[in-house]
Amino acid sequence: MANKDLTFSREFEVRFSEVDIMGVVWHGAYPLYLEDAREAWGHHYGLCYDDYLKNNVFAPIVDMDIRYHHPIFYTTRPRIDITYHYSPAAKIVLDYEIHDTKDNALLTSAHTVQAFTDRQYQLILENPEFFLQWKERWGLLD
Amino acid sequence: MANKDLTFSREFEVRFSEVDIMGVVWHGAYPLYLEDAREAWGHHYGLCYDDYLKNNVFAPIVDMDIRYHHPIFYTTRPRIDITYHYSPAAKIVLDYEIHDTKDNALLTSAHTVQAFTDRQYQLILENPEFFLQWKERWGLLD
Amino acid sequence: MANKDLTFSREFEVRFSEVDIMGVVWHGAYPLYLEDAREAWGHHYGLCYDDYLKNNVFAPIVDMDIRYHHPIFYTTRPRIDITYHYSPAAKIVLDYEIHDTKDNALLTSAHTVQAFTDRQYQLILENPEFFLQWKERWGLLD
Amino acid sequence: MANKDLTFSREFEVRFSEVDIMGVVWHGAYPLYLEDAREAWGHHYGLCYDDYLKNNVFAPIVDMDIRYHHPIFYTTRPRIDITYHYSPAAKIVLDYEIHDTKDNALLTSAHTVQAFTDRQYQLILENPEFFLQWKERWGLLD
Repeated sequence: MANKDLTFSREFEVRFSEVDIMGVVWHGAYPLYLEDAREAWGHHYGLCYDDYLKNNVFAPIVDMDIRYHHPIFYTTRPRIDITYHYSPAAKIVLDYEIHDTKDNALLTSAHTVQAFTDRQYQLILENPEFFLQWKERWGLLD
Repeated sequence: MANKDLTFSREFEVRFSEVDIMGVVWHGAYPLYLEDAREAWGHHYGLCYDDYLKNNVFAPIVDMDIRYHHPIFYTTRPRIDITYHYSPAAKIVLDYEIHDTKDNALLTSAHTVQAFTDRQYQLILENPEFFLQWKERWGLLD
Repeated sequence: MANKDLTFSREFEVRFSEVDIMGVVWHGAYPLYLEDAREAWGHHYGLCYDDYLKNNVFAPIVDMDIRYHHPIFYTTRPRIDITYHYSPAAKIVLDYEIHDTKDNALLTSAHTVQAFTDRQYQLILENPEFFLQWKERWGLLD
Repeated sequence: MANKDLTFSREFEVRFSEVDIMGVVWHGAYPLYLEDAREAWGHHYGLCYDDYLKNNVFAPIVDMDIRYHHPIFYTTRPRIDITYHYSPAAKIVLDYEIHDTKDNALLTSAHTVQAFTDRQYQLILENPEFFLQWKERWGLLD
């Protein structure tokens, strides 16, 4: 298949409280930017926290990498692009890029991996049934 | 009884990420200062989240007031004093003062009220038994 | 004058990370809800952080009161209403109400007061010129 | 030289507000754990935000990687170990491990890289003089 990526983009605003004493967004605020993007992506593609719960699984972040290429200022108007990369494994692997909407400069790139666990936080190594169905729904299996 | 107040004090450090673009602690960081003080007070006097859970109640904040008298800077070395004021009601009423340890200047005063609810978030109007016992243990009933 | 209130409303989404171990929005997350509403209100009415800076003043929060009437859940779809109440003093006094969009139930009410200070955090007791002009622009002086 | 690592350890407490709806510490709370450890490490070894400022540089995080091996619960009593690895480059490279003090199990490992910039956020490629002196002071140059 040519393209198995599921992408989503949206602009967002920097919050006053996210800017630190150096005048730029505090690096620790970015995980929330990623989470907001991930929830919006999930709403768009039908893979949300509620879906996990209904299926008695959690999908915690097990890896998170962030590269801060350029600072984000209070006046920056950023856009975040999020991309799901197909993997046969029982994992949700997402890539993120934050761009300045003014000149499209790449400000940040990031990467998260979510694994599935049961309600006792024990890792689930096989794809849960609902996740297989989700993959199929989006044409990711073949 | 002369004094039914249960007090606790401790110094703390301002975190880099709590300081905002104006160079002072962001006002929204203070609820965490209060919570840290409240947890330390609770550990000291034996009234913690775990005690609530064991007794099948929650004790959510229902009122929070904060007066920001003077800014807290990154270099400030603050001390927070927390005081429990006895009340016959099924509530936990706490007052807080943040002082500069350098000159004891009052920087902030605050006030929280916690009510008891059951696990369905329904208000409990009577003092839970464990809370009465707690009050008795500290000589607050007479 | 009949009505000197400047109001603004908007719906918002609860973030996963704002929900605590009790399954409801952590009380300390609300100041950010207020700040988001205040920034949106400020963009709408032309009274933002940038305007303060251009005029060499800060407008820090000096009082914040929050009444938590009912918990907000992850599934709640809340709306926040913010109202500026005219005052002749050199202060920005705002009231907030958070409602459940499902049944319009009042979930939270809050109140903030901002004072003006110079860049050395010294209180400014007189209305700054730009703030008087802002009041005039919105028909608040007469 | 046998050992050019500068290490520091300390225990810390999980805050109520850091625990999310799944009953474990929210992944986005960890950058603050790292920052707290980094500041404590910096105070111990004399390399703090104030030192940067005095020398007209910033030292922003440019890379942050976190591996979440096991969840941290509200009842966990974690210890964080932080290690500075010598590098000839104008960078501060730190590794972190969070362990459960009960059984020493590895819960989290993390890695941050800080670069130096001037006050206009332009990268400084050469070691700043004060940083060379700091390296010398700790026997890291030879």
